[in-house]
Amino acid sequence: MPPLAAVKTPLYLKLARSLEEQMSRGVLRPGDRLPSVRAFSRQQRVSISTVLEAYIWLENRGAIESRPKSGFFVRVPFAKTVPEPRFQTPAPRPASFSASAIVREVIRSADRPGNVPLGSALPDPQLMPNAKLNQILRRIIRRYPMHSAEYTFPPGAEGLRRQIARRALGFGCSLAPSEILVTSGAMEALNLALRAVARAGDVIAVESPTYFGGLDAIQSLGMRVIEIPTHPSEGMSLDLLENAIRKHRVKACVTISNGHNPLGYVLSDDYKKALAELTAKHDVALIEDNLYGDLAYGPRPPKLAKSFDQKGNVLLCASISKVISPGFRLGWIHAGRYQEELEQLKLKTTVATATLPQLVAGEYLESGGFDRYLVRLRIAFAEQVRMVSQAVAKYFPEGTRITRPAAGYLLWVELPKKIDSLKLFRMAVDANIGMVPGPIFSTTGRFGNCLRLSCGYRWSDTIDRALVTLGRACDEIARGGVRSQA
Amino acid sequence: MPPLAAVKTPLYLKLARSLEEQMSRGVLRPGDRLPSVRAFSRQQRVSISTVLEAYIWLENRGAIESRPKSGFFVRVPFAKTVPEPRFQTPAPRPASFSASAIVREVIRSADRPGNVPLGSALPDPQLMPNAKLNQILRRIIRRYPMHSAEYTFPPGAEGLRRQIARRALGFGCSLAPSEILVTSGAMEALNLALRAVARAGDVIAVESPTYFGGLDAIQSLGMRVIEIPTHPSEGMSLDLLENAIRKHRVKACVTISNGHNPLGYVLSDDYKKALAELTAKHDVALIEDNLYGDLAYGPRPPKLAKSFDQKGNVLLCASISKVISPGFRLGWIHAGRYQEELEQLKLKTTVATATLPQLVAGEYLESGGFDRYLVRLRIAFAEQVRMVSQAVAKYFPEGTRITRPAAGYLLWVELPKKIDSLKLFRMAVDANIGMVPGPIFSTTGRFGNCLRLSCGYRWSDTIDRALVTLGRACDEIARGGVRSQA
Repeated sequence: MPPLAAVKTPLYLKLARSLEEQMSRGVLRPGDRLPSVRAFSRQQRVSISTVLEAYIWLENRGAIESRPKSGFFVRVPFAKTVPEPRFQTPAPRPASFSASAIVREVIRSADRPGNVPLGSALPDPQLMPNAKLNQILRRIIRRYPMHSAEYTFPPGAEGLRRQIARRALGFGCSLAPSEILVTSGAMEALNLALRAVARAGDVIAVESPTYFGGLDAIQSLGMRVIEIPTHPSEGMSLDLLENAIRKHRVKACVTISNGHNPLGYVLSDDYKKALAELTAKHDVALIEDNLYGDLAYGPRPPKLAKSFDQKGNVLLCASISKVISPGFRLGWIHAGRYQEELEQLKLKTTVATATLPQLVAGEYLESGGFDRYLVRLRIAFAEQVRMVSQAVAKYFPEGTRITRPAAGYLLWVELPKKIDSLKLFRMAVDANIGMVPGPIFSTTGRFGNCLRLSCGYRWSDTIDRALVTLGRACDEIARGGVRSQA
Repeated sequence: MPPLAAVKTPLYLKLARSLEEQMSRGVLRPGDRLPSVRAFSRQQRVSISTVLEAYIWLENRGAIESRPKSGFFVRVPFAKTVPEPRFQTPAPRPASFSASAIVREVIRSADRPGNVPLGSALPDPQLMPNAKLNQILRRIIRRYPMHSAEYTFPPGAEGLRRQIARRALGFGCSLAPSEILVTSGAMEALNLALRAVARAGDVIAVESPTYFGGLDAIQSLGMRVIEIPTHPSEGMSLDLLENAIRKHRVKACVTISNGHNPLGYVLSDDYKKALAELTAKHDVALIEDNLYGDLAYGPRPPKLAKSFDQKGNVLLCASISKVISPGFRLGWIHAGRYQEELEQLKLKTTVATATLPQLVAGEYLESGGFDRYLVRLRIAFAEQVRMVSQAVAKYFPEGTRITRPAAGYLLWVELPKKIDSLKLFRMAVDANIGMVPGPIFSTTGRFGNCLRLSCGYRWSDTIDRALVTLGRACDEIARGGVRSQA
């Protein structure tokens, strides 16, 4: 296995992991009370805040729970018998397997009435702050009835751009509002970024697995994909990325640095720094998607590769609407030295972005309510991920592996080798259960025994039963031993 | 001058034009009463409805006015001394002059406070049915608070697609709702259409002049533009288009068939049929933009080339939001045999379209209020075009020519040869007056003495004064005799 970049683990994480290890070795058992924060801080000779951060991290991962006035307790572990997916390292080369037909089927089946929402990466609308947003919306159209008829030319509504810049500080990035371009969703940002830095025939390096929409975007622009072997919790091998850059004249690299889709990881600060430096050194554009940075379970917002950008070669894409109101279709990009080109491209493709959602989102981001809402949302998603993980551990065949998401609500499942997830997908479609088969997260046809589950919806008996059904379907496929074509 | 396709003029139009000629020859003079509809119908041996259509056409063009209970009267003619622009026919060949920087400046200056809105092709928000739309919007979010958080995957909201299909019947097109794809504005429809039918390096034939955004879209996709000489009221020369197709292996042809931007014409039914047949014969995709079909001044909705599409090679693009609420960002496309590819491309670029505006627009289109609103809007725009035309005739230098728009609210002005419209543009920017200089409507640097004026806003003293200023600026440029670089 090739070495990953040397990664400096923060203190709280070391502490949390040593506690996790004690739990997995049975030193700390379900129901046990953890040492008090003060006692543990003295015992470990670390600050109180470090202990608190470790406990919050473990709580967000569902490993421990806090009981009011009693302290922290070990929860029933879900993952004792379910390891993380393996890190596999096939030699990377540009490939072009296209999964468009399956992507479309995934989306179509999600639209069927009664579909169990484990497929599309969409949050439960019940969790969104609709009442608050609708209230702001009503207030704006009452005061300025014409706003609903207006659109805003690039770079977008100033108030919203100011709020985006203000919040970016939390991610370690100092961005001028004037350098931020509002887009029609984060996928538009990614498409425009690709078009600004590369052209048809150019090679783009990506994580593997990675979001199928990104692969589709690259391929539909006539660019070529090279997949870099990716550790399921620590990101692409930077050595193999550098090899690929040397060998294939890579033009740009796409990373989903916080809340990876589908792996759920948050890259460490050191890794992000190394990635920014590596791409800068080779003059490769780094397109960074901060997909679920707002939904990272850690005690602080994670940093971004962008915060280590010295040369303006990092194009930071993000979504605003995904965590508050997917229907707003609001993304943004800070394109570094490509800013001018990005604004031009936006004009040439969708021209402008609706004004009203920008005004509503801008007001909401400005309010303290947004941060309080995010805290609740993170906890809800972490809990949903925990519930689905437990159910997978219980219902899926032996040999199944699952990721340990550090942000967002996506779970990546590796089934025993002989279970074909495309076959599972067909059975899931028949049972009206959403899920996304592994092969579409790659252009090489790999991940045939993997799948992505979305934990965006509140846990329910329906979801529980659906996971029972999927587990049985896995058994059936395993027994039949049939392998369908990828 | 090469011959245009043989065009069969409808009876009412012949009648209207003969009346126009009588006015221009002074047989009918300002203030004269026209024959009653009944009398004129007997005299000309045509039906009453034909006479009515002719009178409505003349009224919409501002040539006559109806006075309640008194009949129709000749108005003061604005254009007696102002001819239509000339039809020029340089030999077409692919070219690549890019005007992005100027486009951006046009847009930026439009955003300046107090800018006189003769530049961007945007309607006066005061004319839009905001109150009605906001009422529907409020009702929907009260009943279904989560709708504002949702988006709809391709092909889009069913109710809206049904309404689009119903209305397309009026344009002579029978389209199945399932074949209609809702897009984020008409520019997205155009971009996706281009990407579906051609790739980098391919040649696309366009009218000349034509909408700069379309030229930008083609060029930013790495495709090449070939401009076909275009008659200011009758469209591209079909002979020269066929020559170009034969010589340059044209992959697609873009036409703005109803309410051309910037020329304002509505192509005749016969022309549209000939264009559809010509492109089908040579297996060239025809991308038809029905930009202002809803705003045609004629008594009936015009037909579309799409209504003559036998082979599925016509991709019909249109906007919904442009006539009701630009901020809704709703366009659509019927892509004929490219439908499957279009849906895929939409998924790969902006994924989905916001649900709420689709629901609001769908309800509004279903209501009878929409048609009544369109009638009022058409009359308002025709009147605004008439007022601006009169002012141009009065204030601009001798030798100026202007188009006679048959739909929409855009006016194309041809100045005397020595007046450089880029120089005029600079002076307009300094005076905070919007206008769009001619050269950006071409990739060849032509139209250096032309400009586009938008008449989307209600006539006002401010607009009147702005046109005085522009007229004086023209004189100044003419006196100075200075020519700046295109």
